[in-house]
Amino acid sequence: MRDVCVIGLGLIGGSVLRAAVAAGRTCWGVSDSQADVDAALADGYDATTGLASALDRAADADALVVLAVPLTAVDDVLRTVASHAPHCLLTDVTSVKAPVRDAVARLAPQTRYAGGHPMAGTAESGWKAATATLFDGATWVVCAEEAAADDEPGTDLTAWREAAALAFDAGARVIALPALAHDGTVARTSHLPHLLAAVLANVAGAGGPLTAALAAGSLRDGTRVAGTRPELVRAMTEGNRGALLPVLDEALGLLGAARGSLASTGGLAATIDAGHAAHAALEQQQGAPRTPVTLDLRAADALEGLLSLGERGGWLTSLDGDVLTGEVA
Amino acid sequence: MRDVCVIGLGLIGGSVLRAAVAAGRTCWGVSDSQADVDAALADGYDATTGLASALDRAADADALVVLAVPLTAVDDVLRTVASHAPHCLLTDVTSVKAPVRDAVARLAPQTRYAGGHPMAGTAESGWKAATATLFDGATWVVCAEEAAADDEPGTDLTAWREAAALAFDAGARVIALPALAHDGTVARTSHLPHLLAAVLANVAGAGGPLTAALAAGSLRDGTRVAGTRPELVRAMTEGNRGALLPVLDEALGLLGAARGSLASTGGLAATIDAGHAAHAALEQQQGAPRTPVTLDLRAADALEGLLSLGERGGWLTSLDGDVLTGEVA
Repeated sequence: MRDVCVIGLGLIGGSVLRAAVAAGRTCWGVSDSQADVDAALADGYDATTGLASALDRAADADALVVLAVPLTAVDDVLRTVASHAPHCLLTDVTSVKAPVRDAVARLAPQTRYAGGHPMAGTAESGWKAATATLFDGATWVVCAEEAAADDEPGTDLTAWREAAALAFDAGARVIALPALAHDGTVARTSHLPHLLAAVLANVAGAGGPLTAALAAGSLRDGTRVAGTRPELVRAMTEGNRGALLPVLDEALGLLGAARGSLASTGGLAATIDAGHAAHAALEQQQGAPRTPVTLDLRAADALEGLLSLGERGGWLTSLDGDVLTGEVA
Repeated sequence: MRDVCVIGLGLIGGSVLRAAVAAGRTCWGVSDSQADVDAALADGYDATTGLASALDRAADADALVVLAVPLTAVDDVLRTVASHAPHCLLTDVTSVKAPVRDAVARLAPQTRYAGGHPMAGTAESGWKAATATLFDGATWVVCAEEAAADDEPGTDLTAWREAAALAFDAGARVIALPALAHDGTVARTSHLPHLLAAVLANVAGAGGPLTAALAAGSLRDGTRVAGTRPELVRAMTEGNRGALLPVLDEALGLLGAARGSLASTGGLAATIDAGHAAHAALEQQQGAPRTPVTLDLRAADALEGLLSLGERGGWLTSLDGDVLTGEVA
């Protein structure tokens, strides 16, 4: 089993470290927070504040390096990666993927990189909140890109395989997606919901004490994620600006059309009926029976196979040698 | 205990009939659906399709008449009320209040009227879904209006008291509010949440199979009420057009501001931080300790007292003689 070097020991990085060790791997962590390092050491894990030496060790061991720092710290860490482990196997666990992919191409272009996004979290943060089971049953996107027309190579399958193996070790299921497809989808499935919850909480709050007195289940559900720590919501939404803007425009367009229709004809059928149908379709897709699939990473068209499966919402659940097993609706 | 005549035997009207009978009242129901009448008769309730004769009986008994028909049928029923029980005590259970209040003033101006809105429901509809306990623990708005400056009298306190007594018999708590305050508040607490859920479901659905594969808890919560029967959502939102339009404009303004800020500065702090604070304030208000209050309906300023309590989100839970008991934060 390949060694793992985790950079960043917050909730996600700390949970990756714990899960990798629980799976039997040799694993060491790095953080610039002395408190997190001390806590990790006290819990019996191998941790240090020395980024350069941890990366030297990763280069020597040909370890998988996992970037688990906030998006705003990625560039600085990548510069040190380029100095100390320039050819390493590299993944990350940041919630947006195109900006990290672009930063890697710019700052550490010789690394063998496949970005990742484990879709799990809790209301807590920091090493203290990290657990080896955080990703158990979660979906973990591992990015894959086709070779570009101008002879830019596609995703390194060795890097993809190592990132996926780490996800499987943590109990997650893996979906292979291009970075832009990931970012556009989470804008719809997570970032827009968070913004609409914030808008709804603001409008509801403007109703004063009567809002609390008459609050119905629809308001409670619609505002629940407005209780998430604002710095987390800002980090993920602001970090995904490029993909979120057009999705926000779609929402503004539909809400504006509803407003116009209510004002002119008095009718809201188009909005409400379509929303009901879309909700039903989503539930139907999530409950649809799924068929087993296998995929051999040694095949000439393995990358295309991964991307085709991901595009259909299919996921992978285990790796045996070079053979992936999963399912698709 | 005053007799009750319920017009409309769907989920809400049927539940009112069952609850009033369970409380020991003499109660009869009317429906133009022979199937609902037959089902009510089979269940041992007094029911008829004869609206005029049911209203004649109400006039003779000085019964409380409860309008439990859809908003679109209110005008027709009111014309028959004006012919057969023109001075009756009258309430209704429609989800919007200003349009019904205006229809009563126009079509049955001599009735003693206090509008109501029991805030309860299920996914089912019709007599078969009705239960005597549907309103147990629910909030039931009973409308009260101040006397207008032009000597138009305020709400008849006898009518208000009779509507509230029915709500208490059904196990509900009562909030006294002007019709416009009710309609503006439910636009914020229920109708906007339903429209945002529809918009979110539509935008999410446009993401294809990847949406279902990456759907997070925020999307599930944010779209849940898009699963409500579309005809119910249309009836309540379209019926509350006057109050909903400015609330929709608030939401459009805030979402547009977020879009503009993200596009220009890249920041979403104003939206997200304010949404978080509003959500926290709402939770704080709902959990705030409440102080007991009493209110004597014989007092010269009883109507002002009811309205002042309602404005602060205070509610009433029982009536003993002329004395109301309740609580306020």
